[in-house]
Amino acid sequence: MTDGRSVVERLTLEEKARLVSGASFWTTAEVSHAGVPAALLTDGPHGVRLQRTGVDHLGLADSMPATAFPTAAALGSSWDDGLLREVGEALAVEARALGVDVLLGPGVNMKRSPLCGRNFEYFAEDPLLAGVMGAAWVAGLQSRGVGASVKHFAANNQETDRMRVSAEVDERTLREIYLRAFEHVVREARPATIMCSYNRINGVYASENPWLLTTVLREEWGFDGYVVSDWGAVHDPVAAVRSGLDLEMPGTGGRSAAAIVAAVRAGELSEDVLDVAVERLVSTHDRLRRGRAEAAPDFDAHHALARRVAAECAVLLKNDGGLLPLDPESGGPIAVLGEFARTPRYQGAGSSLINPTRLDDALTAIRAATSREVAFAPGFRLDGEPDAALLAEAVEAARGAAAVLMFLGEPSEAESEGFDREDLDLPEAQLQLLEAVAAVNPSVAVVLSNGGVVLTGPLTEHAAALLEMWLPGQAGGGAAADLIFGHADPSGRLAETVPHRLSDTPAHVNWPGSEGQVLYGERLYIGYRWYDRTGRDVAFPFGFGLSYTTFAYSDLAVHVPDPARAEARVEVTVTNTGTREGAEVVQVYVSDPVADVDRPERELRGFRKVRLAPGESARVAIELDARAFSYWSTRHGRWVAEPGEYGVHVGHSSRDLVLEQRIQLDVEHPQAALRADSTLQEWFAHPRGRKIVEEVLLKAADGQQSFFTDPASQALIAQIPLATLLSMGASQGGQQPPAMDDLLRMANSETPSS
Amino acid sequence: MTDGRSVVERLTLEEKARLVSGASFWTTAEVSHAGVPAALLTDGPHGVRLQRTGVDHLGLADSMPATAFPTAAALGSSWDDGLLREVGEALAVEARALGVDVLLGPGVNMKRSPLCGRNFEYFAEDPLLAGVMGAAWVAGLQSRGVGASVKHFAANNQETDRMRVSAEVDERTLREIYLRAFEHVVREARPATIMCSYNRINGVYASENPWLLTTVLREEWGFDGYVVSDWGAVHDPVAAVRSGLDLEMPGTGGRSAAAIVAAVRAGELSEDVLDVAVERLVSTHDRLRRGRAEAAPDFDAHHALARRVAAECAVLLKNDGGLLPLDPESGGPIAVLGEFARTPRYQGAGSSLINPTRLDDALTAIRAATSREVAFAPGFRLDGEPDAALLAEAVEAARGAAAVLMFLGEPSEAESEGFDREDLDLPEAQLQLLEAVAAVNPSVAVVLSNGGVVLTGPLTEHAAALLEMWLPGQAGGGAAADLIFGHADPSGRLAETVPHRLSDTPAHVNWPGSEGQVLYGERLYIGYRWYDRTGRDVAFPFGFGLSYTTFAYSDLAVHVPDPARAEARVEVTVTNTGTREGAEVVQVYVSDPVADVDRPERELRGFRKVRLAPGESARVAIELDARAFSYWSTRHGRWVAEPGEYGVHVGHSSRDLVLEQRIQLDVEHPQAALRADSTLQEWFAHPRGRKIVEEVLLKAADGQQSFFTDPASQALIAQIPLATLLSMGASQGGQQPPAMDDLLRMANSETPSS
Repeated sequence: MTDGRSVVERLTLEEKARLVSGASFWTTAEVSHAGVPAALLTDGPHGVRLQRTGVDHLGLADSMPATAFPTAAALGSSWDDGLLREVGEALAVEARALGVDVLLGPGVNMKRSPLCGRNFEYFAEDPLLAGVMGAAWVAGLQSRGVGASVKHFAANNQETDRMRVSAEVDERTLREIYLRAFEHVVREARPATIMCSYNRINGVYASENPWLLTTVLREEWGFDGYVVSDWGAVHDPVAAVRSGLDLEMPGTGGRSAAAIVAAVRAGELSEDVLDVAVERLVSTHDRLRRGRAEAAPDFDAHHALARRVAAECAVLLKNDGGLLPLDPESGGPIAVLGEFARTPRYQGAGSSLINPTRLDDALTAIRAATSREVAFAPGFRLDGEPDAALLAEAVEAARGAAAVLMFLGEPSEAESEGFDREDLDLPEAQLQLLEAVAAVNPSVAVVLSNGGVVLTGPLTEHAAALLEMWLPGQAGGGAAADLIFGHADPSGRLAETVPHRLSDTPAHVNWPGSEGQVLYGERLYIGYRWYDRTGRDVAFPFGFGLSYTTFAYSDLAVHVPDPARAEARVEVTVTNTGTREGAEVVQVYVSDPVADVDRPERELRGFRKVRLAPGESARVAIELDARAFSYWSTRHGRWVAEPGEYGVHVGHSSRDLVLEQRIQLDVEHPQAALRADSTLQEWFAHPRGRKIVEEVLLKAADGQQSFFTDPASQALIAQIPLATLLSMGASQGGQQPPAMDDLLRMANSETPSS
Repeated sequence: MTDGRSVVERLTLEEKARLVSGASFWTTAEVSHAGVPAALLTDGPHGVRLQRTGVDHLGLADSMPATAFPTAAALGSSWDDGLLREVGEALAVEARALGVDVLLGPGVNMKRSPLCGRNFEYFAEDPLLAGVMGAAWVAGLQSRGVGASVKHFAANNQETDRMRVSAEVDERTLREIYLRAFEHVVREARPATIMCSYNRINGVYASENPWLLTTVLREEWGFDGYVVSDWGAVHDPVAAVRSGLDLEMPGTGGRSAAAIVAAVRAGELSEDVLDVAVERLVSTHDRLRRGRAEAAPDFDAHHALARRVAAECAVLLKNDGGLLPLDPESGGPIAVLGEFARTPRYQGAGSSLINPTRLDDALTAIRAATSREVAFAPGFRLDGEPDAALLAEAVEAARGAAAVLMFLGEPSEAESEGFDREDLDLPEAQLQLLEAVAAVNPSVAVVLSNGGVVLTGPLTEHAAALLEMWLPGQAGGGAAADLIFGHADPSGRLAETVPHRLSDTPAHVNWPGSEGQVLYGERLYIGYRWYDRTGRDVAFPFGFGLSYTTFAYSDLAVHVPDPARAEARVEVTVTNTGTREGAEVVQVYVSDPVADVDRPERELRGFRKVRLAPGESARVAIELDARAFSYWSTRHGRWVAEPGEYGVHVGHSSRDLVLEQRIQLDVEHPQAALRADSTLQEWFAHPRGRKIVEEVLLKAADGQQSFFTDPASQALIAQIPLATLLSMGASQGGQQPPAMDDLLRMANSETPSS
């Protein structure tokens, strides 16, 4: 391994400044005399987007062909870390073939609102799920020597005003929700780089945020790669380096380097800090180069992988009467409706836009998969304009068909980096098509393509089956055919709640903020945490997904090896009770019904996807570590697992938890020191404090002892600071109370008070 | 008027320090040589609570007899400022008879959550309603030379951890919701004193908050009275004086005065600041004394007033088949059920607990009011313990009765200063009684006594009529009889939404906070603002209330005298279309459908209560000033009314608005200066900025002009700061862009740019 330190020693101040500020739009500087080559970073994360021709101000010009894998919205629904690892490995092969050192992904931001225009690039509304998916992707990618860049760090959960808006988030919410997936990836997968986001967090740009980039990321989590800015996220290059940013991208034609040099010369920036940044950059790129396993990409194999993955990610939301799968050999004519069957909606817009090596459409794949007669009608126009002729043609095609496969989805202009959606509705023309077709044919299966959730009420009202494909990548059409004819089992589960109404969503009154700020007023309660806490019905809950087979749970056993430690091992038997092979996602949630702080009703703390043959059973074991029981205590400045009873819940989804076991943890309760503003209640709850109140103070209470001990007045005074009570007593002409400082010393001292 | 200044000049430093820190639990210091008498402050606000005997640590011992008027929860439901003024005048007479200088009230905090244990002391969930009610009460009280102390300033909306908790509230929410009622009272009624609250606001104790006590209260609102601490709210007497607190209560036996003297001597506190505090205190007390009109209280007249007021505050929520009013002369036997008919629940606990001069019970009043046979059965125990015998006896009494009057309510221990409620449910035994009785008699009218709202679902399911009396004061029993037999019309309207479920309430996920903080995450959206924004059904909406008669609206006319000014005059005709005299509350709401910031769907901006004989019409005029159209702009640091269309809605309640008129305001739009981080969209929206981008920059764009002007890329880049775009262009090898500073100077200069 290159000794980054020794490289740094051979560099001039100017060279170091050049290295931390990028050479061009996609490359870092090289310093050949010191053996520092340029590194190439380029967009991902669902494929390699290496810009081919020309330049533009945003680096969005045409790119080299690459496999367009399913988007993160789909991948997150797989709940399958092994699958994500495979995708990462394939991406690395393609990246290396194009000379790429760092692929910009994965995106592990939380889906705070379904309106976020970039949700298709994010995995989940739950940080554990996003973290596990992200770590697997990173591990796969980096196993072949291509660096990941986990983005967008942090609290970048909307596109509206994304370059400036200040996400106003309390620390506990950041720690438990918005930083948690990043933490998981850093700790589990050692990513080469982290990409800081554009936005501010509590007023401070992520690119200039020492708490975020240094205190939390490096000192607490042990991150040892480098931090790169999102493209254009740096406002003050000197403040950025000082805060822990190691690489500004894209290059600024030398202006940032000059500012850094000037700041070092003026004593405003320590050269040591700059040295550390350069060292991280050099060491990381060197580590990646030495881990490389170059290979020519097998695009056919990657396309096949993309097809298999897309099927694993699909979520079957409804399947009345077992309409799906269709028999490929018999059953009468099939009507395939919807322009998306012919013109796939398979990826989102912006920096993740891939130039695919091939593109499956569902119509062709369906025709290839079945010997049944297949008719097609587009049914609606992609631009959303109503078209009565198309509608009538589709209804005609549906009439008399044995089954209707209707391909609906969000139009591509609705979902992109750069702006947010305004509603969750499918275009009116598509809903009209469904309604008209359902009126003549009850056997309609809707196949959906969309990045963010859409309201499914109008779909489930008219369709007998509903298959959510998300944005499934270039092989989505083939995957759809595999699922429709039962060659694959739809084994995705929702990584995001589908609500009934936009106004039910957690951030609704705080979206998308105004005047430069957005308050995360719902705090921890995003996704299912919100719907569970507020008792809202949902269309489909987090974790939900049907299969072509069925599963049953039995014999839950939760072992606590040592009640003094917050750890448990969950074992449960899951059985395929149907007649087809399929995969179930075993989901484990933990509840903490009594706690010092408010806690979500239940939180996902573990999961495992298991594939089972008909009748087959598996005993699944899932380990829960301390974090599974902990909350972030702002008061104590650390994760706290309290002693007491916890519920461990296992089942099919966040709202279909069929088994539960209560466990008791006897871990130590964090004992806060008594303070000047501690209440009477807190003094009574403190072992030494109670003695002091009883022995010292009640004696001085001038015959009013009963006031402190009488249950009736206790209810009223329990929450009054002792100091206030004593001071008010003195105002009544009582004795001057003992000095609070003395009482606190007695209470908080390590020696016994008596 | 005493020249406070000249008094101050005659005082020593020690005397001044003594004056600002209270002499005893209820009195300020006197300095006889300077002609400064002691002043007596005592609890209110629903009656005079002058402590009679002994002392205790909280000043809650037995008090002198005084009229217990309806609580604020009831008074707010009257929507009648004239009535509030009468109550204030009566309170002043009683206060003066006991030598009281300042009565501690009114409480104008917002009802953020129905769980707040002290909601019975607050008027409303809407700041305009609370402000108008509070100002009228203050005007009445002070008209007779007794000072009001508007409390609890500010953001004291819960009892849990109330002495310490930091209310984390953004400035706009503070300005529009939590400070607004205080502002209204200060501007309209010139209160003698403001009482600061115990809690912290954004981390700073209210008692030590210069922004709150000086910048906002005095410099912006022009408050000229003095600020007194809530009893025991001062932690650092020096910091308090420095921040704008004028009087610490209660006295601290000289400790605070000593600390202040020491701080002045050490140069840590300016003596000028202390002088100003003393001057305010002396001048205010002097002003009060000179405005005095002493009179012996007529307790009979006050009891009669309390009875009339209680009837005006009662809200009739349901009255199927016109069950109420009952004919006092005929109609068969009446069953009066419920212990509260005999043992009234009429006030809350804590500092507002009055020792009433008399106490009406409804049972006696009903028997006095009717010649019909009246049977009574208590039905349930006040301690909530189930009692099958009581239940059976009540069912027997109800069987065969022509009508059942059932008195239900919250038990007294459920609502108090000092702790919050845990649910919104009536005790189970009461609900069982109702269900059992309704099964044998369909003509059940429930009369409710409670301070905070209760869930009415189980009541409306079984009762034909539902009359909400709140905590109606000592004459509530008589008022109930007046309403039941139609001698009074229930003309209260809800000042607080009645939700279906606790989990529907605005602060549900942020209540009551933990670890010393509570986030006001719902921001502006409390009360009806929340239910309207989130599209929630409610049991009964804000503003709702039936009458024994009916009202119709017609001929809405909204005049905008000058569209360049944000002012309008609303005129509407309201007609009593029924057969009885009654009072309607004409409610005016304003909506702003398109705005730069998120705004509530509709906000109460004016109201007027009108009493009409059967068939009578009145033309009601309500003036809307600029504030009715404005939001608080954090960016501009002021109230902003934007140009554009507004809706003016008039009707019976927040959800029964029967007339609407759109108006157009052509006021000037606030033009923010362009800044270094202004987006391309903002440059294009700025008159001079657009020219600069077009003339200067596109020329320098190296043939990429289309990138800036093409609609497709515009969607993506509209929200990118121009500086970022230019900087990224330079990284592509384009020309170095013009310096941002120059562009900004050109754009923001007053001279034309060309």
